[in-house]
Amino acid sequence: MAPRGYGQDCSIARALEVVGERWTLLIVRNAMGSDCRFESLLDSLGIARNVLAQRLSTLVEAGILERIPYRDRPVRHEYRLTGRGRELAPVLAALMQWGERNCPGAQPAPDRALVHTRCDHPVDLVLRCRSCDESVPTSELVSDPGGPATGDPPADNRPLTATAATGPDTH
Amino acid sequence: MAPRGYGQDCSIARALEVVGERWTLLIVRNAMGSDCRFESLLDSLGIARNVLAQRLSTLVEAGILERIPYRDRPVRHEYRLTGRGRELAPVLAALMQWGERNCPGAQPAPDRALVHTRCDHPVDLVLRCRSCDESVPTSELVSDPGGPATGDPPADNRPLTATAATGPDTH
Repeated sequence: MAPRGYGQDCSIARALEVVGERWTLLIVRNAMGSDCRFESLLDSLGIARNVLAQRLSTLVEAGILERIPYRDRPVRHEYRLTGRGRELAPVLAALMQWGERNCPGAQPAPDRALVHTRCDHPVDLVLRCRSCDESVPTSELVSDPGGPATGDPPADNRPLTATAATGPDTH
Repeated sequence: MAPRGYGQDCSIARALEVVGERWTLLIVRNAMGSDCRFESLLDSLGIARNVLAQRLSTLVEAGILERIPYRDRPVRHEYRLTGRGRELAPVLAALMQWGERNCPGAQPAPDRALVHTRCDHPVDLVLRCRSCDESVPTSELVSDPGGPATGDPPADNRPLTATAATGPDTH
């Protein structure tokens, strides 16, 4: 997890040290859908047994999954997302959205959704401007290495503040 | 890009086939900050020359970057994000936000931001419920493999619809 030099001491780089690998995020995706047992993950992902074991250990060490016994003889475990793991939902939502737009599948997309439990309605991923409060298309975004001139974080409990998706211009 | 069996014909999996690798997303991050020349990327990323060349080719083939000459003798190119590449901004914003919360750096985070060009104010990444229109914390999200019961997409030009960040329960 050590920064690899200038430009790497960045929250995106640090996040990718933990989750920047195909299998890791697919395991998290499945765990969000209650697919959290070793044999089940092995079947659905088509991943090698040793690779899956290694990725699960990494995710437990990183505090993204926790390992919980569900049977005694023989002992079997399942892997549940921690709060930190659940916070990866926006990453998966953003990848899903990009994939839906840019990588069409062989079959029509299934009707999966991230749903707000209190309302039972789906959620949308939005980049919202702090000034005009509008949803901002990516064509109207620019990276500002100097940081925001003004603007407070949003008032809800858990602001999903998007300060800094990019590296500085001096890279 | 071929699906690897059941559970892999999923927009998240397809997106990760293209961008699910540490260097790829760091190159996109730098390109959003105008760092788009080979030697500059080489310096700032600390990546091997052959690996960088290979990742840039992949990104050009995938339509995420375009290769544009900026000098004649000798010919030198720079790599600019396409529209498709710019649409990765929410993925970077989500990774940045998760990294800021969960992978603190050795130094205080720099004041980088994604800024709305029309307002010159930073944007926030929000998961917004279509019913109550509130920002939804990840603790109130659930994956619904059957899809939304109700709810229309948002009315703005480019809805960032987060249908399906997770796999079905049967994985």
